[in-house]
Amino acid sequence: MPTRSTIMDTNSFRAEHADALDDVTRELTAKREALLGASYRLFYRNPVHVVRGQGAYLWDASGRKYLDVYNNVPSVGHAHPAVVAAVSAQMATLNTHTRYLHGSVLAYAEDLLSTLPGELDQIMFMCTGSEANDLAIRVARAYTGGTGIILTSEAYHGNTELTSAHSPALGSSQPLDPAARLVSPPDGYRADWAADGSVGQWFAARVQEQIDAMREQGVPFAGLLIDSVFSSDGVFTGEPGMLAPAFDVVHRNGGVVIADEVQPGFARTGDAFWGFGRHGVVPDIVTMGKPMGAGMPISGMAAKREVLEAFSLKVPYFNTFGGNPVSIAAAQAVLDTIRGEALQERARTVGAELRASLTALADRFDVIGDVRGAGQFTGLELVTSRSTKQPATALALDVIEGMRERGVLTSVAGPSGNILKLRPTLAFQSGDIDWLMESLTDALVQALETRP
Amino acid sequence: MPTRSTIMDTNSFRAEHADALDDVTRELTAKREALLGASYRLFYRNPVHVVRGQGAYLWDASGRKYLDVYNNVPSVGHAHPAVVAAVSAQMATLNTHTRYLHGSVLAYAEDLLSTLPGELDQIMFMCTGSEANDLAIRVARAYTGGTGIILTSEAYHGNTELTSAHSPALGSSQPLDPAARLVSPPDGYRADWAADGSVGQWFAARVQEQIDAMREQGVPFAGLLIDSVFSSDGVFTGEPGMLAPAFDVVHRNGGVVIADEVQPGFARTGDAFWGFGRHGVVPDIVTMGKPMGAGMPISGMAAKREVLEAFSLKVPYFNTFGGNPVSIAAAQAVLDTIRGEALQERARTVGAELRASLTALADRFDVIGDVRGAGQFTGLELVTSRSTKQPATALALDVIEGMRERGVLTSVAGPSGNILKLRPTLAFQSGDIDWLMESLTDALVQALETRP
Repeated sequence: MPTRSTIMDTNSFRAEHADALDDVTRELTAKREALLGASYRLFYRNPVHVVRGQGAYLWDASGRKYLDVYNNVPSVGHAHPAVVAAVSAQMATLNTHTRYLHGSVLAYAEDLLSTLPGELDQIMFMCTGSEANDLAIRVARAYTGGTGIILTSEAYHGNTELTSAHSPALGSSQPLDPAARLVSPPDGYRADWAADGSVGQWFAARVQEQIDAMREQGVPFAGLLIDSVFSSDGVFTGEPGMLAPAFDVVHRNGGVVIADEVQPGFARTGDAFWGFGRHGVVPDIVTMGKPMGAGMPISGMAAKREVLEAFSLKVPYFNTFGGNPVSIAAAQAVLDTIRGEALQERARTVGAELRASLTALADRFDVIGDVRGAGQFTGLELVTSRSTKQPATALALDVIEGMRERGVLTSVAGPSGNILKLRPTLAFQSGDIDWLMESLTDALVQALETRP
Repeated sequence: MPTRSTIMDTNSFRAEHADALDDVTRELTAKREALLGASYRLFYRNPVHVVRGQGAYLWDASGRKYLDVYNNVPSVGHAHPAVVAAVSAQMATLNTHTRYLHGSVLAYAEDLLSTLPGELDQIMFMCTGSEANDLAIRVARAYTGGTGIILTSEAYHGNTELTSAHSPALGSSQPLDPAARLVSPPDGYRADWAADGSVGQWFAARVQEQIDAMREQGVPFAGLLIDSVFSSDGVFTGEPGMLAPAFDVVHRNGGVVIADEVQPGFARTGDAFWGFGRHGVVPDIVTMGKPMGAGMPISGMAAKREVLEAFSLKVPYFNTFGGNPVSIAAAQAVLDTIRGEALQERARTVGAELRASLTALADRFDVIGDVRGAGQFTGLELVTSRSTKQPATALALDVIEGMRERGVLTSVAGPSGNILKLRPTLAFQSGDIDWLMESLTDALVQALETRP
């Protein structure tokens, strides 16, 4: 089983760490520390004080404009007028729960299910990705009768007790569930997969190993919980089809696959509406969240009927805010906008264009070890040397801080925090690539000068 | 330890149970069953198809008006213009997370903390009451080093794995946490409290018994998690000061008290802004949810700094949607409206007026065993006879169905489902009492005629 590290807070700071700030920033950070406590971290040594957003951009209190290359929640763009209008109109009409009949939640359920494989024929609504994954684990256990869930070694699946215990990214101060087992992600850049034939076969073999280990240890196997782009692990989108062998292994061993689509879902990967779609596989349970309502707290869990019923015919579940008409109005507007503005196609083409620029940049910088991704989910791996592939952790941090000073907001991922995670809103266009590339190039030059 | 029953779904139905419905209702219920699955239950044998809300009222698709005497989420009234305006404006400006600086979350945190005792000096934001209680249990355990939580026997605290395991109301198909222990609620109507001097002393003795039992069983005590109006247990608001002895017992034994204010919070009990406020006690952790954002999914957990730090200095916690500017705008508008429209005072006076009418009605109906409550939280207990106090469960169900047919929406609570839970929006006024009383009287007459 791979060892664990803590990457969740690599690029976030407690207020007390922020010095040399302007007066307003210092006052706000001190107030945060006092009122909100130690859990509240900030991005950047010099935090950004945002006041306005539109499309792919954010503005701070001084009127400075930023290019947002990190926030996937405002999926269709910050303050999208269609979402604003839908929410405002529904707020003024009715907001209530699902123990009364309301038409829009059903129309949306039907529409959303039409984007999923036919086998996934039921959907429930919650408010956060954490709630969706918490329920998904319970459903997987109820259906299989097992408890053991396999996770990738830097996965993050939520902040509840159950999902935190299935989030190795939180580090060693958060104990893992006793039945959870870790596998390395399908890291085509570093894994020694040649003997297995493909990264996908290599990954499937790792999953089989953990299933075997569970069996030996008397832990009944429940399933595999994965983010199909392995976002926290370092962005491993892989070749289409890569995940098929692992899905087969899970199913052959009587488990279920939970696809955590909180990160890759809603057209982000370009080739498909869902992240798993690139691999021609059918999960048993699909969870979704962040981009679903463009900031409105809504999440969902889709499942095969027979899988869901093992739980829902037995244990009562009600989510007060889940599926309320206002959240549904936001989610429907997001879905309509993705289609109406052809954002999946844009993610595909603009993402490819961005990676072509990044690959060209690698000719100039030896520290760029790998460029990978799908659609608008790109990982740029920085290394001290291409031969040793040693992670350039400090450099990566300097680079994102440098980009922030040049108005481009992004962050890092992976166990060493050396992988730039470029994950803009779907409003990001070809014309935005120049600003991103300039800021990255300048930040790299500066960082390499100061850190020889 | 008291036995458990399932009250959560007393007045809710799966679609398949709905027959003799009009065409649209039948179509919608069938669609729900197919798309959303078995967890989705409906209020009433003849479900209400709501399309609009304003103030204390809802309207169905046929234009029929209903008096809402059950929904505490739209606390300041359905579609309150101040909330609609605040959300619409913020949506059009910016929605983002708390890893950037934003002023409004801090202004709201300060404002909200000013309504709490000074010892509770930090607040964190989540999206649902379940998330708040899930975190609160983890914080209580981290601070005390214990695991054992004491709960009332019909309590409901949430839908995550951890909170479900602390929600005996979910029934025996949901296992309780192995360290959880149950006590009967401070039921002044039924409990045999005379020997203890007061209901409060009686309740404190029950808590002490369970702490002692934990000690004998080697379960380290963590704390008491209670809803200060014991809503699911049957609405036991009690005399002011009632909860003080139990708080003393918990603190003397090294535990913490988590006040689950999801139901009684935000001015509902009239005498105080928070439910525990009537009892002159200071909890260590306070959770809040439902009415906080008038339907916008927002929740919070306030705590004493030293209690919170035991968790938050150690375990990473981040909630993507928690404390976002749009949810905060809704919550600030709710707080401003409660003050601006003096809704706490209205809850106090109108609630008292309602209970005076209900007490007068008890002269006419022997089946009314008890009328109790505080502010706009009223329990009306129906019994087959005042001497035996036997719960009139079937009668209570008939009555709420009868009231629904007369346009008044409410439901039941308690282990036998015989207690009408009258919990209107805070927009409910004196002028609404007549409709409520007429529908209740007529429904009682009819139910008693058909069920002699």
